Amino acid sequence: MRVYDVIQKKRDREPLDEAEIEFLIRGYTDGSVADYQMSAFAMAVYFNGMSPDELSWFTSAMLHSGDVLTLDEVAGTKVDKHSTGGVGDKISLPLAPAVAACGVPVPMISGRGLGHTGGTLDKLESIPGFNVNMTTADYRRLVRDVGCCLIGQTAELAPADKKLYALRDVTATVDCIPLIASSIMSKKLAEGIDALVLDVKYGSGAFMERLEDAETLARTMVGIGEKMGKQVVARMTNMDQPLGVMVGNALEVKESLDVLHGHGPADIIAITVELGAEMLHLGQVAATVEDGRQQMRAVLSDGRAARKFEQIIEAQGGDPRVVEDPSLLPATDKRVSVKAAKAGVVHAIDAREVGIASMLLGGGRARTDDVIDPRVGIEVHTRIGDAVRAGDELFVLQVGDKGVTDAVARLEACLRIEDAPLEPPSRFGARIDHAGSGPT
Amino acid sequence: MRVYDVIQKKRDREPLDEAEIEFLIRGYTDGSVADYQMSAFAMAVYFNGMSPDELSWFTSAMLHSGDVLTLDEVAGTKVDKHSTGGVGDKISLPLAPAVAACGVPVPMISGRGLGHTGGTLDKLESIPGFNVNMTTADYRRLVRDVGCCLIGQTAELAPADKKLYALRDVTATVDCIPLIASSIMSKKLAEGIDALVLDVKYGSGAFMERLEDAETLARTMVGIGEKMGKQVVARMTNMDQPLGVMVGNALEVKESLDVLHGHGPADIIAITVELGAEMLHLGQVAATVEDGRQQMRAVLSDGRAARKFEQIIEAQGGDPRVVEDPSLLPATDKRVSVKAAKAGVVHAIDAREVGIASMLLGGGRARTDDVIDPRVGIEVHTRIGDAVRAGDELFVLQVGDKGVTDAVARLEACLRIEDAPLEPPSRFGARIDHAGSGPT
Repeated sequence: MRVYDVIQKKRDREPLDEAEIEFLIRGYTDGSVADYQMSAFAMAVYFNGMSPDELSWFTSAMLHSGDVLTLDEVAGTKVDKHSTGGVGDKISLPLAPAVAACGVPVPMISGRGLGHTGGTLDKLESIPGFNVNMTTADYRRLVRDVGCCLIGQTAELAPADKKLYALRDVTATVDCIPLIASSIMSKKLAEGIDALVLDVKYGSGAFMERLEDAETLARTMVGIGEKMGKQVVARMTNMDQPLGVMVGNALEVKESLDVLHGHGPADIIAITVELGAEMLHLGQVAATVEDGRQQMRAVLSDGRAARKFEQIIEAQGGDPRVVEDPSLLPATDKRVSVKAAKAGVVHAIDAREVGIASMLLGGGRARTDDVIDPRVGIEVHTRIGDAVRAGDELFVLQVGDKGVTDAVARLEACLRIEDAPLEPPSRFGARIDHAGSGPT
Repeated sequence: MRVYDVIQKKRDREPLDEAEIEFLIRGYTDGSVADYQMSAFAMAVYFNGMSPDELSWFTSAMLHSGDVLTLDEVAGTKVDKHSTGGVGDKISLPLAPAVAACGVPVPMISGRGLGHTGGTLDKLESIPGFNVNMTTADYRRLVRDVGCCLIGQTAELAPADKKLYALRDVTATVDCIPLIASSIMSKKLAEGIDALVLDVKYGSGAFMERLEDAETLARTMVGIGEKMGKQVVARMTNMDQPLGVMVGNALEVKESLDVLHGHGPADIIAITVELGAEMLHLGQVAATVEDGRQQMRAVLSDGRAARKFEQIIEAQGGDPRVVEDPSLLPATDKRVSVKAAKAGVVHAIDAREVGIASMLLGGGRARTDDVIDPRVGIEVHTRIGDAVRAGDELFVLQVGDKGVTDAVARLEACLRIEDAPLEPPSRFGARIDHAGSGPT
C-alpha cells in the first residue's frame, strides 16, 4: 500500500477502506507517513469530506494510535461531557459533581486554556492543593470510589490526533467539520466511556458561528458515536455572549460553587440542568430527560452536588473547605470598572474579546508556556438585550499586576449599544441524537 | 503576512495577489514555509486551480527563486523546445542542430531519464567524450560561437520548482495542470530564452492521455508565456505508440543521425520538421511556418544539420566522427527477437511498457542513482495499424547483461493484435499559440 494512492483516492472522491485509513494513521503515528502527506490528505478531506464509514474508521484509527483506557471494573454507565468551547464556560465544574451525585460515574478528562478560551484544568487548579495530574490507576480509582474525576490526560491518548491537530493549525485545515469531529471523538472515546453528551456552541463567540455549521458538526459527531457503538447526544447552546457572569479561573470556580448551592446565573443553571439531564438519561438513572432535569434541580438545591464536589476535591488533594468558604480561593482586591459611555440597549458583547481581555490580565495564556494568575478575571454585568444608562457598571475587572490598560480598552470596544430594543438570543438550539442524525 | 492565510485564500477561491505568491515561494525556497504547508497549498490548487495572473506570478516567483541566465550578448532570437516526454522521443537530437544550422540560436538545457522515459543528456553521453556538464560561461560561449548547446543544468535554476516537484511526487498533486505548466515554464524561462516551442504529448503513452487535457496544459503554458512576454507555440503530438524505431541511448543517437542525414522514420522526420519550422518562425529566420518547413527539409537533406551536430559534439568534447560513422557509438552484439504469436492487425503498443522494458535492460533508471548501459535498447519494428503474420519479428532487443527475461515478457504482453483493420492514429493534434489560447 502506498500513501500516495490513499491521498489520491480521497482527492478523486473514491471511497477508502478501513485498511487504507488504518495504514494512513498508523504511518502518520510512527512517522512513515510524513506531515506533508498528511496535510495534503487533510486538504483533500476539506474539499471532499469523509463518508460515515470513513469517518468512523478514521476516528477509530486515531483513538487506537495511543493508549485506550478501560473502566470496565467500574459499575454503571460511564458518561462524559464535551464542550466545543466558550468564554465563561465553566459548566463542567457544577455539572460533573451534580451528575456523579445522582449516581452516574463521570470520568472527565479536560484540557488547559489557550488564547481567548479558558481551560477546566486551570480553573480547578485555583482551588488550593487541587491536583489534576493523575495516573491511569488513579483515574480508575477515582471514578470507582468517588464516582467522578476531574483530571488532565493520564496517558498518551490519541497521539495521532495530537499531531494532526497541530498540523491543521498551520495548513489552513482547521475549519473542516470531519476533521474537527474525528479529533474530538477520538480523544473522548479513548477515555473508556460508554456515552457522551456534547455541548456544541454556535453564535458570534463560538468556533462555528452559524447554527447550521454547528448542527452539522454535532450530527457528524453523533454519527461517529453511533458507528462506534457509543450513545452520543448533542445539545446546541448559544455563544453570542460570555456564559454567566464570571470569566477567569478562581472567579469561575466561585460562580460554579454558587450553582452547586442552588444559586448562580440563570444561563449557567439552565445549561447545567439540560446537559446533566441528558447525562442522567444516557447513564440510565433517569427514565426520561425530563426526569433527569428534576433530579438535577434537586441535587443542586439539596446540597448533594456540593457534597460530591467536596469529595472530589478531597480525593484530588485539594482543600474541600472552599465549597462552603469561597474566600479560601485566591483573590485580588484590585478592581477596575468599565462603565457605559452612553445609554441604550446592548446589542452585542464580543465574547472573544472578553476572553482575550481576561487573558491579558493574566487569566489565560497567549502561549502554552505562559503562567496563569488564578485571581484575575472579568465580571460581565450586562447581557444582550439589557437597557443600560450612561455610567452603568458593565464590566468589573479583578486585576493583578498586568494588562489592565489593554483589557479595559478591549472591553470598552467589545460592546455594541444601540437605541432599538432587542430580544435576547435564545439559549438553546436543537437537540441532536442518533434518531436525528444524518450522514455528513 | 501569514502562510496560513495564503493557503486559506486559495482553499476558499479568493484571488491571491503577487505579493502573497512571492511570499509563499520565497518562504518555500528559504525553508520558512514548510513542506506540509506547500503540499496543502498544492492540494488546494488541485481543487481550485489558479487564475492566469496567479499562474504567471507563481511561475515568475519560481523562476526567480534561483539563478536566471541571460543570453543578451548572443545576437538573434533564442528559441528552445520542450517536450512533455515520450518513449523514443529523441527529437531534440536532430532538431537542435538543424534549427541552429538555419541561424536560430538554440540554448537547450535538458534532463536525465527516470522510469519509462529516457533523457536527452543520457542519450548524448553515449557519444564518446560528449560532456553535458558545462558552466554558465560555457553555456553563453557555446550558444554564441556554435549557435547551440545541448547540456544539463549549469546553475541552480528554479530551486523552488525542484523542491515542489519532489513534494508533488509524494503528495498526489502531480497531475495538476497549473502546477505542471508552471513547473515546466519556470525552468525553461530561467534559461534566458526569447521564445519556446512546446511538444505536448497526448495518447496512451503520454502523461496526459486525453487530448483535451493535453490541450488544456498547452493552452496554460502558452498563456503563462504570453503573460510573461515570451512567444510560446505548442504543438500537440500523438504518443499512442513509441516514437520512431529506436528506444535506448546509443540507439536513439543512431536514429537521430539517420534523420540528420535525411533518412530515418517518417514520424521522427515529421515531428522534427514541424517543431523546427515553428522554431525558425519564432526565431525570425522564416517568414511563415511553411517557409520554416522548407528550410528544415533542406537543412536535413543537404548535410548542414549534420555538420552543425559535428560542431556541437566537438565543442562539447565529444568525438564528431560518430556523425559519419555511427559504428563508433557503443553497441552490443547480443540481440533477442520478440515475434508475433498470431496474425492480425496491431491495435495497440503500450509505449510505457516498451520504455520500462528498455529500462530493465539497463537503458534507463529505476532510481536516480542507477547507472545506464548506453548500448542496450529496443527496436520497435511494428506500428499501430500494421498487419502482421505469426512469427513476424516485432521487437529486437539489443541486450547487455541484465533484464532480458523480464523485458521480453513485457514486450510480448504490450501489443494488442486483433482481426479488424485499423487506421493508424494521426500524428498531430492542434497547434496552440497566443491567438488560440484561453484562460485555464
